[in-house]
Amino acid sequence: MSNNNTVNNKRGVRSASARASRALGETASKRARKSVKIIPLGGLDQIGMNMTVIECDDEIVVIDCGQAFPDDSMPGVDSIIPNFDYLRQNYDKIKGVVLTHGHEDHIGALPYFLREFHVPVFGTRLTLGLVRNKMEEFGIKRVDLRLVVPGDVVELGHMKVEFIHTNHSIGDAVALAIFTAAGVLIHTGDFKVDYTPIHGGMIDLQRLAELGRHKVLALMSDSTNAVRKGFTMSERTVGHIFTEMFPQAQGRILVATFASNVDRVQQIINAAAEYGRKVVCVGRSMVNVINTALELNYLEVPDGVLIDISEMKKYDDDQLVIITTGSQGEPMAALSRMASGEHRMIDIKEGDTVIFSSRPVPGNEKSVSNVINALMQRGAKVTYEDAHVSGHASQEELKLMYGLVKPKYMIPVHGEFRHLTQHAQLVKDMGHDPRNVIIMRNGDILSLDSYSAKIIGQVDVSPVLVDGLGVGDVGNAVLRDRKILSEDGLLIVAVGLKGPRGDVVSGPDIISRGFVYVKESEDLIEGSKNIVSHILKSNYPIAPMDWNAVKNQIREQLRDYLWREIKRSPMILPMIMEVKD
Amino acid sequence: MSNNNTVNNKRGVRSASARASRALGETASKRARKSVKIIPLGGLDQIGMNMTVIECDDEIVVIDCGQAFPDDSMPGVDSIIPNFDYLRQNYDKIKGVVLTHGHEDHIGALPYFLREFHVPVFGTRLTLGLVRNKMEEFGIKRVDLRLVVPGDVVELGHMKVEFIHTNHSIGDAVALAIFTAAGVLIHTGDFKVDYTPIHGGMIDLQRLAELGRHKVLALMSDSTNAVRKGFTMSERTVGHIFTEMFPQAQGRILVATFASNVDRVQQIINAAAEYGRKVVCVGRSMVNVINTALELNYLEVPDGVLIDISEMKKYDDDQLVIITTGSQGEPMAALSRMASGEHRMIDIKEGDTVIFSSRPVPGNEKSVSNVINALMQRGAKVTYEDAHVSGHASQEELKLMYGLVKPKYMIPVHGEFRHLTQHAQLVKDMGHDPRNVIIMRNGDILSLDSYSAKIIGQVDVSPVLVDGLGVGDVGNAVLRDRKILSEDGLLIVAVGLKGPRGDVVSGPDIISRGFVYVKESEDLIEGSKNIVSHILKSNYPIAPMDWNAVKNQIREQLRDYLWREIKRSPMILPMIMEVKD
Repeated sequence: MSNNNTVNNKRGVRSASARASRALGETASKRARKSVKIIPLGGLDQIGMNMTVIECDDEIVVIDCGQAFPDDSMPGVDSIIPNFDYLRQNYDKIKGVVLTHGHEDHIGALPYFLREFHVPVFGTRLTLGLVRNKMEEFGIKRVDLRLVVPGDVVELGHMKVEFIHTNHSIGDAVALAIFTAAGVLIHTGDFKVDYTPIHGGMIDLQRLAELGRHKVLALMSDSTNAVRKGFTMSERTVGHIFTEMFPQAQGRILVATFASNVDRVQQIINAAAEYGRKVVCVGRSMVNVINTALELNYLEVPDGVLIDISEMKKYDDDQLVIITTGSQGEPMAALSRMASGEHRMIDIKEGDTVIFSSRPVPGNEKSVSNVINALMQRGAKVTYEDAHVSGHASQEELKLMYGLVKPKYMIPVHGEFRHLTQHAQLVKDMGHDPRNVIIMRNGDILSLDSYSAKIIGQVDVSPVLVDGLGVGDVGNAVLRDRKILSEDGLLIVAVGLKGPRGDVVSGPDIISRGFVYVKESEDLIEGSKNIVSHILKSNYPIAPMDWNAVKNQIREQLRDYLWREIKRSPMILPMIMEVKD
Repeated sequence: MSNNNTVNNKRGVRSASARASRALGETASKRARKSVKIIPLGGLDQIGMNMTVIECDDEIVVIDCGQAFPDDSMPGVDSIIPNFDYLRQNYDKIKGVVLTHGHEDHIGALPYFLREFHVPVFGTRLTLGLVRNKMEEFGIKRVDLRLVVPGDVVELGHMKVEFIHTNHSIGDAVALAIFTAAGVLIHTGDFKVDYTPIHGGMIDLQRLAELGRHKVLALMSDSTNAVRKGFTMSERTVGHIFTEMFPQAQGRILVATFASNVDRVQQIINAAAEYGRKVVCVGRSMVNVINTALELNYLEVPDGVLIDISEMKKYDDDQLVIITTGSQGEPMAALSRMASGEHRMIDIKEGDTVIFSSRPVPGNEKSVSNVINALMQRGAKVTYEDAHVSGHASQEELKLMYGLVKPKYMIPVHGEFRHLTQHAQLVKDMGHDPRNVIIMRNGDILSLDSYSAKIIGQVDVSPVLVDGLGVGDVGNAVLRDRKILSEDGLLIVAVGLKGPRGDVVSGPDIISRGFVYVKESEDLIEGSKNIVSHILKSNYPIAPMDWNAVKNQIREQLRDYLWREIKRSPMILPMIMEVKD
């Protein structure tokens, strides 16, 4: 278990001053003999669900514990979390979880994890603030959260983890330097290089360079934007756009953005304050994050600028800015409900200006477009370009990161296959030995030492689906059924049989759902009944042991009949009920 | 009906020479008194399903008859077609259908229409070639297709329709000038301005300008790209990209594009021939369109360049180009099947180069991305940028069209609301009287004359869903059921009751699909059974007239129970079966 973590001060971490020399000296001497394993449980070949196991000397450090969100192939699924099986089998090796930042794809699976694994979790202040919210929401009480600040080094068994300040679309993001007996691993987390960030200063390029100078065994680097040329713009550039747009708006201004982008919210508040507008926050996650950010001093709000939604009516339209969730067109989010006229408090009207300070995540383009159209039809002016910058490094920043760290092994992480390969190509183009660029897949066990890198095995990483309170009880069979049901509906045939000869004493009754509009398809239903009656008659007498065969006949003959008649393949469910005397 | 159309030559159309003076002269004199109605049955607030009714003097001309493709909110639906009710009620007024080009969103609903409406259909050669394919596919024999060439004027009752050559991403596209007693209407169809097209010459800007000089009552103009700045690049620019890419490829080259983009296919064939490669066409729609284009001489292929898929093995990889469907990531298309290793004839391998000569249609981004990743994982090099240009006019071309035609009324068509409003803004910015810019909605009856424009009513345009052979039998109730089924599956409770007191002689039996993995949820199923048994017991005796009440109790109590236990809401179907003696 995790009771032997060395803790050196009140925050439970070793102070920053003594860190680099010790850590580097110790690992250098052992580097030749030892190997370290890297096992991604998620985050590769996909966007989201980031979780990586670092294992050395029978000790494990876990990086992040994120969730992914389902696409259309998984109807009804709320969330997808990593498979913890490998960690279950190696529970006693786990020294702790280290978090890079507070986004859902990095912390979203923590409640499921911490229910089961009682290990310490290390993170920066905003990250832990968001984790704490999540634990409260899930009613999880006993968790061992340990605060770090960038520069801290945490000892986790024989490994040490240093937290290095970076920039991203949420505050308090860090990269990790993991000092192992086999060498130093650097994991960037999600990052960009922002020379003029809103909060917390620019990414600590100096420390990354210093580590690079002393040899880094492997760099795991964010590939999300690896196909984007150039350099991602500074978060601050978005602020200029707000200060340009706000004075032009005549009525209310609504800004939709990601709840977790506290710096974005800060800039909206700044622009609002500059032009004498009050700010209202709408949407559960927006309100939660803003409250956390306020408590922890990640947001500075001039007195009286932030008002409650109930106070809106006291102000004229041109005195208001509404910051809202729903920038991805999510159907239940506040903005979507405003667009469809279903929001409890806010009606969109002529004169409103809606700014999408976001870009659609792939897969959400259509729903965002629908919301934009609906807002415009209600008379709003909608702006959906320019008012956003990405939180991820583009190609020139990725080259910078690689160029500072110059690792022996390059491992692109966080991204679909095309992002990983593009990232790999970038460093090959910079002269990195192609044999030392490793594109991993989830579940690969990569064993690294200073002489070699090889995939030595696989762990089970079939993701776990969460639907309501059920974790893992929705699998492929259930999803397949849902898909069939969604495309052609179902037809249920029920019949009651009695006695050893299977006399028909009830039915056949047929009901359908999602198949055809029954009132206009009476012939089809009647035809189906006749087929079933005929099958029952021609099989008479039907002993209980023959029921399955009869069910199969019903299924097959109805399937053929319906396909012939109407070219559809509903799920056919024959129910034969045994009738007692 | 349509038997009084004046036909003046073998092709059934009036020759081009006499057209302009007559048409303009005749309408000018009556313009002051008469009005014309424009009724869009589809194509507004949406992409696709273009169909517009032009009605004057109790005569109707129909422009296009397209289908739309369903999004995720309509699982199982194959196609969406316009509502023909208004035309049914006015069948005897219909003089004919005029087609602007051969894309599915302009001709796809024709088979459904022509089954019912026996009216002549006018179109250019490639357009009618594609319509003919479609009719064969649907087994529709008796259709009255009438060939026109750009420049032709067709008399349809008292209206005349002139076909004006344009550019688009399919050959033989035309705009329409409709000469009515109320004035001249111009409908652009889908268009772009291509000064260097592959086939058929540049758009006839001169004729559009000439018509503009003589007063145009209304311009209906394509808004698809109204939010894109600048000028859409010429189709020819894509050819340069192929000739750059082809010599770099070491192995096979696969190009995915829209089957209907014959000019694109021509350019791929040209580049293949230039570099000594043979061309194989893959995918049903690709093969169909190419055959039609070959028959009608819209494709020029050097002898021996086009080979059958079965001949591929005779050639080395670097002697082959494969043109394939699937550029939108459609799961059943050839390229997707290659990517998933399910294609009968073609396996993707290391050394293959795949070029996406397309851009994802909104809503398809995710599936395209999935196919790209899968292709790359099989070792293909994939290029998905640059090798495409749009077929629709960007802002500068829209301004050009407006500037040449200078209509009294401007009606942006083809596009979502945001496209229509942006298009409207463009012409307002050019000085058009904002009162004369009309944003219509599907079903609006717009009445126009030279003095005024007003919406005078509405027709029913609720779209008709096609699922298999069923046309219109899938409605909102069925779709709602499919959605519920897809998200949480279903739970069926069957019980057999007998006699006037409703003695339970069978069940309760429970089966579920798409809900939970039953073997791991026995407690839940058992708990549900107990609830049903308890309801049956506490309602005993149950007269037949009480069955519905009992069913409702089962539904409600199970719903509450399942939500409490597992936070899911499957569809609950209680079946009470009457058991005979």
